[in-house]
Amino acid sequence: MAESATISKGLEGIIAGETGICAVDQTSLIYRGYEIADLAAHATFEQVAYLLLVGQKPSEAELRAFSAELIANRPVPAQVVDYLRAAGPMLKAGTAVPMDVLRTCVSILGNLDADSQDNSPAANLRKAKRLTAKIPTIIGHMQRIIDGKDLVNPATGGDPALGHAANLLFLMSGEKPRPDYAKVLDVSLILYAEHDFNASTFTSRVIAGTLSDLHGAVTGGIAALKGPLHGGANEMAMEMLKEIMRDVGEKGIGTAAVDDWMQRAFDTKRKLMGFGHRVYKNGDHRAPILHALGRKLALTDTRNPGGHSAGKWFDLGEQVQKIMLEKKNIHPNVDFPCGLTYFTMGIAVPQYTPIFVASRVTGWSAHVMEQHANNRLIRPIAQYVGPALRHW
Amino acid sequence: MAESATISKGLEGIIAGETGICAVDQTSLIYRGYEIADLAAHATFEQVAYLLLVGQKPSEAELRAFSAELIANRPVPAQVVDYLRAAGPMLKAGTAVPMDVLRTCVSILGNLDADSQDNSPAANLRKAKRLTAKIPTIIGHMQRIIDGKDLVNPATGGDPALGHAANLLFLMSGEKPRPDYAKVLDVSLILYAEHDFNASTFTSRVIAGTLSDLHGAVTGGIAALKGPLHGGANEMAMEMLKEIMRDVGEKGIGTAAVDDWMQRAFDTKRKLMGFGHRVYKNGDHRAPILHALGRKLALTDTRNPGGHSAGKWFDLGEQVQKIMLEKKNIHPNVDFPCGLTYFTMGIAVPQYTPIFVASRVTGWSAHVMEQHANNRLIRPIAQYVGPALRHW
Repeated sequence: MAESATISKGLEGIIAGETGICAVDQTSLIYRGYEIADLAAHATFEQVAYLLLVGQKPSEAELRAFSAELIANRPVPAQVVDYLRAAGPMLKAGTAVPMDVLRTCVSILGNLDADSQDNSPAANLRKAKRLTAKIPTIIGHMQRIIDGKDLVNPATGGDPALGHAANLLFLMSGEKPRPDYAKVLDVSLILYAEHDFNASTFTSRVIAGTLSDLHGAVTGGIAALKGPLHGGANEMAMEMLKEIMRDVGEKGIGTAAVDDWMQRAFDTKRKLMGFGHRVYKNGDHRAPILHALGRKLALTDTRNPGGHSAGKWFDLGEQVQKIMLEKKNIHPNVDFPCGLTYFTMGIAVPQYTPIFVASRVTGWSAHVMEQHANNRLIRPIAQYVGPALRHW
Repeated sequence: MAESATISKGLEGIIAGETGICAVDQTSLIYRGYEIADLAAHATFEQVAYLLLVGQKPSEAELRAFSAELIANRPVPAQVVDYLRAAGPMLKAGTAVPMDVLRTCVSILGNLDADSQDNSPAANLRKAKRLTAKIPTIIGHMQRIIDGKDLVNPATGGDPALGHAANLLFLMSGEKPRPDYAKVLDVSLILYAEHDFNASTFTSRVIAGTLSDLHGAVTGGIAALKGPLHGGANEMAMEMLKEIMRDVGEKGIGTAAVDDWMQRAFDTKRKLMGFGHRVYKNGDHRAPILHALGRKLALTDTRNPGGHSAGKWFDLGEQVQKIMLEKKNIHPNVDFPCGLTYFTMGIAVPQYTPIFVASRVTGWSAHVMEQHANNRLIRPIAQYVGPALRHW
């Protein structure tokens, strides 16, 4: 407890280190030099994953090799499938949610990985690629088990020609996805891939900073991302919209009934997820990118999610956003349109945050490699406010 | 990247928050008001666990109830036993080490726990007690599987009358432990239980700070503790001593051969584990407490660990400590005498850090409860040092 130490609860405004991976500021989000709107408009998730993990935009040949490696690594070991089947009753009982089961499965993958105890850059890159390839399969298998359906084996029952996002949809649904769904999911994965020292990435770096291994760091990252103040917000945001829809009905959209609902939430100091951000004070610029794409998908809605057209859900979401901005001056973050967009595609709500993992695993892995390359133990100090000295 | 932000790589000297659980400074280590030497001399691990988790010294009745609860919760679910058996080949192949398998087992326990999704203080306390009770069983079962021996069921094959430390030794060895071994292990668990915002506890708090759950936070804590710059140092310190013994022989102890070995290590800039500490600059006062107790045990050595009397190992350890202090002015930390002491008791080296978990789970859990009780998301920022803006 040095006298001159800086105190910052939640480390707000504290620069905890340097990174060459990502720059977050009020006007832009940059991955290794490329602005997020540029990437969302012109890149694929595989290209962005390569950019984050390797450090530069892949050539055509590099991208082909990288994509082939991801495809080859899609199947998961029998031990993971066994555990997913064993976890079925836990998911049904509600003692586990998909994020918790995914956390366990990634930890199991670490126990099986031949490179598990090797922190070299080459081994870390191999492990990162394997995890990036396998996490969609874990999510897909888990959803099939929840739905009581046969698993789709990505090597034999899936379609290797499908890209990362389309494959993820296929493994969950068992059907070849609509190209526009796959494209919008792909963009959402690009938007979710990286965000400097957010809580889950920072968790991964603290773990890696003890010179622990990549699977451990990713397991910890998943545990952190689960929280509703972090990645879990995309599920919570959608659950809130479902609650409002239930309470006000479709006819209540656009009326004062929604204002009244929100006012009650404000009065009871209810925490509304999917709004506000520790870093962005004037809005999260990922949010409008995804909102526009999701809104466009909603116009083609054939699923009628939750018994209402997807457009109605967006109408409700936009009204809620407007009220938050007018009454609280708080903008939505990317998790808000993400919830609406995934709901439009018919994805089960408890898989929204696992899908976030399917993307962010690339950012976490890049940060683990960066931490290992130039390591310093991350160990702050605490201000003691407990009882004075006493004797046992 | 606010202009006025403070930069601190590794967060050295940064106060990341307040805690009522522990005070660490250059002259004392205090758990909720009680100095560590006082606790090591007069308390049991169960009392210290209660102190950390509940906040005060237990009455006799409270301690009886708490101990009974721990004993009743010692058995682990079939799914965990199944996984431990499945992990046997992974441990043998070296793709997994006991810390990694323990990480997976704690994550599985979370998937099964009825309180898993409940962050209330009462639920967190129940989960913390269950984990504290079950982690020794996981370690014991794992070691029996590694040794190719039958598991000791703590409910039927163990001895419920045994305290936490003695039970842990019993479950690993299958034999009622020597009381002096159990007592010294108990003290080591007291010394290891808590240490404010060390890297693993800080990991648990970052995870809990997103309002994620206790099992996730402990899973992340295990991942962080594994690293050789943190808990993994107790294993690495002993491995180094074994290497020196192999190189210089028992006759080399006390001679210049050890100085030469150390000089070579200094010359090659080898990182020597079990020495130095981010916070303690003039020595870790837990180290002499454990060293003295371990040294005393060594005088009664009947195991002849590694083919040399335990006293010889302590002679070697003391010579290494002396050289480190004279040449580098670096003191041993608690992990150095811990390695020697556990080796004296015949505990397998790869279980040293899992045993650290069996203790520190109490500190992690106390911090998760403290974080949840007065939460603020832990989210620092980063200084971008990557490529300048470019176009895709």
